[in-house]
Amino acid sequence: MIRIGIVGYGNLGKSVARELKNNSDMILVCIFSRRDKKLFKDEYFFDSYNNIKSYKGKIDVMIMCGGSQKDLPEQSPEVLKDFCIIDSFDTHQKILEHLKKLNKVGTQNKTLGLCSCGWDPGLFSLMRVLFSSFSKNSHFHTFWGDGISEGHSDAIRKIDGVLDARQYTILNKQALNLVRSGKRVNLSPSDKHKRECYVAIKKGAKKDEIEQKIKSMPYYFLDYETNVHFLPQKKLEKEHNKLYHAGVVSGFFDSKSGNESFFEFSLKLDSNPDFTASVLICFSRAVYRLYQEGKVGCLSVFDVPFKYLSPICYEELIKSYL
Amino acid sequence: MIRIGIVGYGNLGKSVARELKNNSDMILVCIFSRRDKKLFKDEYFFDSYNNIKSYKGKIDVMIMCGGSQKDLPEQSPEVLKDFCIIDSFDTHQKILEHLKKLNKVGTQNKTLGLCSCGWDPGLFSLMRVLFSSFSKNSHFHTFWGDGISEGHSDAIRKIDGVLDARQYTILNKQALNLVRSGKRVNLSPSDKHKRECYVAIKKGAKKDEIEQKIKSMPYYFLDYETNVHFLPQKKLEKEHNKLYHAGVVSGFFDSKSGNESFFEFSLKLDSNPDFTASVLICFSRAVYRLYQEGKVGCLSVFDVPFKYLSPICYEELIKSYL
Repeated sequence: MIRIGIVGYGNLGKSVARELKNNSDMILVCIFSRRDKKLFKDEYFFDSYNNIKSYKGKIDVMIMCGGSQKDLPEQSPEVLKDFCIIDSFDTHQKILEHLKKLNKVGTQNKTLGLCSCGWDPGLFSLMRVLFSSFSKNSHFHTFWGDGISEGHSDAIRKIDGVLDARQYTILNKQALNLVRSGKRVNLSPSDKHKRECYVAIKKGAKKDEIEQKIKSMPYYFLDYETNVHFLPQKKLEKEHNKLYHAGVVSGFFDSKSGNESFFEFSLKLDSNPDFTASVLICFSRAVYRLYQEGKVGCLSVFDVPFKYLSPICYEELIKSYL
Repeated sequence: MIRIGIVGYGNLGKSVARELKNNSDMILVCIFSRRDKKLFKDEYFFDSYNNIKSYKGKIDVMIMCGGSQKDLPEQSPEVLKDFCIIDSFDTHQKILEHLKKLNKVGTQNKTLGLCSCGWDPGLFSLMRVLFSSFSKNSHFHTFWGDGISEGHSDAIRKIDGVLDARQYTILNKQALNLVRSGKRVNLSPSDKHKRECYVAIKKGAKKDEIEQKIKSMPYYFLDYETNVHFLPQKKLEKEHNKLYHAGVVSGFFDSKSGNESFFEFSLKLDSNPDFTASVLICFSRAVYRLYQEGKVGCLSVFDVPFKYLSPICYEELIKSYL
């Protein structure tokens, strides 16, 4: 049995705890949170994040379920000192730095980490490496949506006067169809997506000013077609409480004789955290096994042979799936 | 530079030779054929298959491009005695036996093989392992078509009295739509496909006998709706000279809270041999690297981390694709 710990009990942590029950080779030992454990009425065993070190030797892999902005940059290296970990750190510009830091900590402490694992970064990253390896002429695009982006919702929530917000990333179907038709088009992220923002504001806050602040936010909204809809907090909570998401990596290459190969990987998820949890769980199996083989430091999904993801034995994988 | 040899100069061998030109980290040393090299007017260096052993130490990976029915079961173990190899052996029911045999030869001779690598078996196998690893509730199907199956065409060609043949695998779109709609349906390969065979025969050969031999061929045709059409060789060459193919692995799982995740990997190929060649080439890069790391025996695609497929260095992969 692989002994699992969960660090952080938000949407993702809750999904991981539930999905672990579908994995008979794993056991959930404890969920660590900085919040008071009395708050949690679920059936799991909880402990304070401050006590985590006392579990050393009792947990094989810690699944880090905090946010990329504040939690993971601090917690992942800290926890890796004593445990093997997996995280879904997704601030793209900082992934290499995060990986290098974890690799140093893991190497020094003889533990193993796997970072930036989910569906993107994660599965979509694997597809991008695969697709780019087919040919130096490979031409492909990543599309996200339609779905809720937590990062963008958060960015709106931080504006003065905003009570709450949900941001939907909407895929531009015409752009996707262009790619699918084999057209070699250059598309920026803003050509491929638009952003629909649902915002509840505080009494007295000015809609015009808030809308302007959203639309002029660099990286997040500035270059995108962005629509802002104001609505009462209760209506926001009632009508925009789904955590669905979707995405596509799609492209093609022309062979030396001009023959086109088209390839696509797509996901459509009722629940982004439930699916991300499933990905984290199967890759945590890989962390456990690679650590058993003596690997230490920090890996990415690019280092993981797929045989390690499955609870099924190798010979059975060959018979059933090759 | 990775020094490559090609064994067999049919459609696949020709595609590999051409596509290698797009890979600046590889060099094609020689193409080995049992046919007289004077037959080949292409610009490559050819030698007789009988002379292959004299190239020991001069070639890093042999890309085996013969057929699965008669060539590969004999040639792959033979060539593996002296060289690292990769093949696309695709008789599903015999893959484990083939792998075990190659693993023994590779282990004894300190060489490394990778067998059954292409898009199916190969990429689709990887997706099946990935999809099945998401959840024990994962439910997915593989579809092939519409397109020419080289293996099936080859199998017909080897029947006495047959001059030439093309076999189209036709996808059942209704079955695919059922799967895509999230229906948990049980479908056999023959529910999902039918087989259309176009056959040119020698003078005096008996159509009835040949049709019977095709339809009763185990694994290839026995369990499928199979239609056989006889036509003159010239008409066959003129009207059935495209080597296109396509396929989909599609499915879903329900999380513990009943949220559905849908996933799909699909390919649409103008030229099956051109695409299979590209897959063989990027996995031969992995064979070379894993052999450099000391691996011997025989691997499957399930053993290969994706970082080994790409000519791009690890740090660049992280920056560009993670």
